[in-house]
Amino acid sequence: MSLKDTCAIVGVGMTKLARKNPERSSVGFALEGCKSAIEDAGLTKDDVDGLLVVHPAQQGERHGWSGRMADLLGISSTFTATVDCGGATPIVLVQMAAMAINAGMCHTVVCCYGWQNNPIDVPLSLPPGFQFTLTYGEIAATPFLAQVARRHMHDFGTTSRQLGAVAVACRKHANMNPNAQMYGRPMTLEDHQNSRWISEPLRLLDCPPWTDGGGAVVVTSAERAKDLKHRPSYVSGWGQAHGAPLLRPWRRPEVSDWAVWSKAGEIAFRMAGVTQKDIDVCQLYDAYTIVLLLQLESGGFCKVGESGPFVEDGRIELGGELPCNTAGGLLSEGHTFGFGHIVEAVRQLRGDCGERQVKDADMAFVTGFGGVVNEYPPTFSLSTLIIRR
Amino acid sequence: MSLKDTCAIVGVGMTKLARKNPERSSVGFALEGCKSAIEDAGLTKDDVDGLLVVHPAQQGERHGWSGRMADLLGISSTFTATVDCGGATPIVLVQMAAMAINAGMCHTVVCCYGWQNNPIDVPLSLPPGFQFTLTYGEIAATPFLAQVARRHMHDFGTTSRQLGAVAVACRKHANMNPNAQMYGRPMTLEDHQNSRWISEPLRLLDCPPWTDGGGAVVVTSAERAKDLKHRPSYVSGWGQAHGAPLLRPWRRPEVSDWAVWSKAGEIAFRMAGVTQKDIDVCQLYDAYTIVLLLQLESGGFCKVGESGPFVEDGRIELGGELPCNTAGGLLSEGHTFGFGHIVEAVRQLRGDCGERQVKDADMAFVTGFGGVVNEYPPTFSLSTLIIRR
Repeated sequence: MSLKDTCAIVGVGMTKLARKNPERSSVGFALEGCKSAIEDAGLTKDDVDGLLVVHPAQQGERHGWSGRMADLLGISSTFTATVDCGGATPIVLVQMAAMAINAGMCHTVVCCYGWQNNPIDVPLSLPPGFQFTLTYGEIAATPFLAQVARRHMHDFGTTSRQLGAVAVACRKHANMNPNAQMYGRPMTLEDHQNSRWISEPLRLLDCPPWTDGGGAVVVTSAERAKDLKHRPSYVSGWGQAHGAPLLRPWRRPEVSDWAVWSKAGEIAFRMAGVTQKDIDVCQLYDAYTIVLLLQLESGGFCKVGESGPFVEDGRIELGGELPCNTAGGLLSEGHTFGFGHIVEAVRQLRGDCGERQVKDADMAFVTGFGGVVNEYPPTFSLSTLIIRR
Repeated sequence: MSLKDTCAIVGVGMTKLARKNPERSSVGFALEGCKSAIEDAGLTKDDVDGLLVVHPAQQGERHGWSGRMADLLGISSTFTATVDCGGATPIVLVQMAAMAINAGMCHTVVCCYGWQNNPIDVPLSLPPGFQFTLTYGEIAATPFLAQVARRHMHDFGTTSRQLGAVAVACRKHANMNPNAQMYGRPMTLEDHQNSRWISEPLRLLDCPPWTDGGGAVVVTSAERAKDLKHRPSYVSGWGQAHGAPLLRPWRRPEVSDWAVWSKAGEIAFRMAGVTQKDIDVCQLYDAYTIVLLLQLESGGFCKVGESGPFVEDGRIELGGELPCNTAGGLLSEGHTFGFGHIVEAVRQLRGDCGERQVKDADMAFVTGFGGVVNEYPPTFSLSTLIIRR
């Protein structure tokens, strides 16, 4: 059976986002996000019977966080788990919440994340296969995505200024979002061009900041959603795809094997019964500027290789053809692992976004993206979500 | 809608289980389990489009294992995640697989775990709240469960010999299971009584061994299951409950606040439309002997406080009233995080268990149990599964 429009997001919450905020632990941020999302929905903890948590990986060895957090929240939960798909996770949580509600396991689920960058002493251990990647400088996501960006430039003529256009769009939007980490810190394309290399061709301003914070959304059945405080954001479509599409340059002749990437989008559009033309606003995973380009292509908003020119001339800025990342994205709202994208999509559909509101935003497309890049083979998970008012 | 009997477990696989097996990593064990379960189902990797993985927590910081493993398995996956609910996870994976299949996200899901006890250097870090638990010696699960056992003894007169009866039953069954870690190592109640204290009143033989290994099960729709190699094990009921039911002695006057514990069982029995009397064989989470006693009570197989006498006189052994943990359980088959319980339940329903076969086993009850015990407050997740042939 199709679960299209059977559930809705009815509450959203974000904590303060900051480069360094020692006031809360990962769990503390997540709980603050939950509290705020439950209040936003006009509900109390007693109305909630499910909890899904983005795995706070830094907590290391320890298990069972979701059950512990359910108790700390004071909810009586019949569906709870901690889940990890890297940056694809926040959307996967919404998918799982909708499935569990339809399965009758629970009726109202809070999905949350919390992240404290300095929780406890976590060592950098050498992953298996490291010997195959260290040679290429791939000790983390940045140098790997730098290779992807370089290949995109080589194959399609994409330029650093086009990458910069993504960063500038996100920063512009962040400056209309008082909760954004980069609020009050405007940035121009020249600033981007003058920022130092982190891993060539990625500059400092192609990369996301470190962000301490948390967030949450509340998902319930369409039936229950009708009676709540805000206009519901119905969950119309979703998809996932996983694989190793962006392999080492030597493994495939072209970087343009997009089958896996596109699948997550195609599945969601098919489920929702709509096309890219129906989307009023996008929230695309943008851990790096290049990642947003890839999501535009895999989401079917432009052809493979054409994302560079696509983002020029303010096309993804507010007022442009396809406004993207209207809260500032990971790049400038803060690295929320993509939770911020879901929260902002809901706020756009509610019409709550003030000066950054997309006029008559009826439908939003949201993506998540994560993976293992510092091991061989690098692999990715993509998640997609279409919500409508 | 009820998902009762809409899906079935059609393939199972376990690797060799051993105290120490450096031949494989956690991921390697999981992949071997997957391969074996897919073959057991009479399928190939091309028939699989979903993958769920018990979070290999020891891998520490790194994200996105499930996508990576999908690629390593060579499957084209449209539903993938790594999930953690402690020892409750294996059953939660089966629940999620059934939900995703019903939601149309995929049609055939492999659920797996892999565990290598010495993968990489993982530090023991001090968890938050440690100052409240260290005082009571609660640095890990064993000392906490020791307190629970002591309280059970105090409140209900449960004896060490009754705990021993659980260990003896599991060991007896393991000696009919050539793949069990304790196969060929018989044990008597006197051996149990003579084993050294680990954390009084828990003795060495009240505790599970360390186990390197992996396992997997394949879940598909009831429709597809009909045409496969083995008689399907239909997934008839399931439940979850989470909370802090076994609190510190000073927080509640009685340890007998079982509402949360019982809920996971009640939900599953209601979903399946059966009662405890319909269950032919149980596979109950038994990380410690005391934990199996608690599961008998919370599952409704005996009254609260009566599990001690219940397990006497071979009642939970093969040939007894309620055969439990017929492959040897965590205590003697090996610490499979509960995956072994699901695999054995399926084998019993298929009638594949040779000398340890429960005659005419039509329906099995399986439980999972996990939590955070070395932090304040200790919290637990319970998961339940009813499968039938």
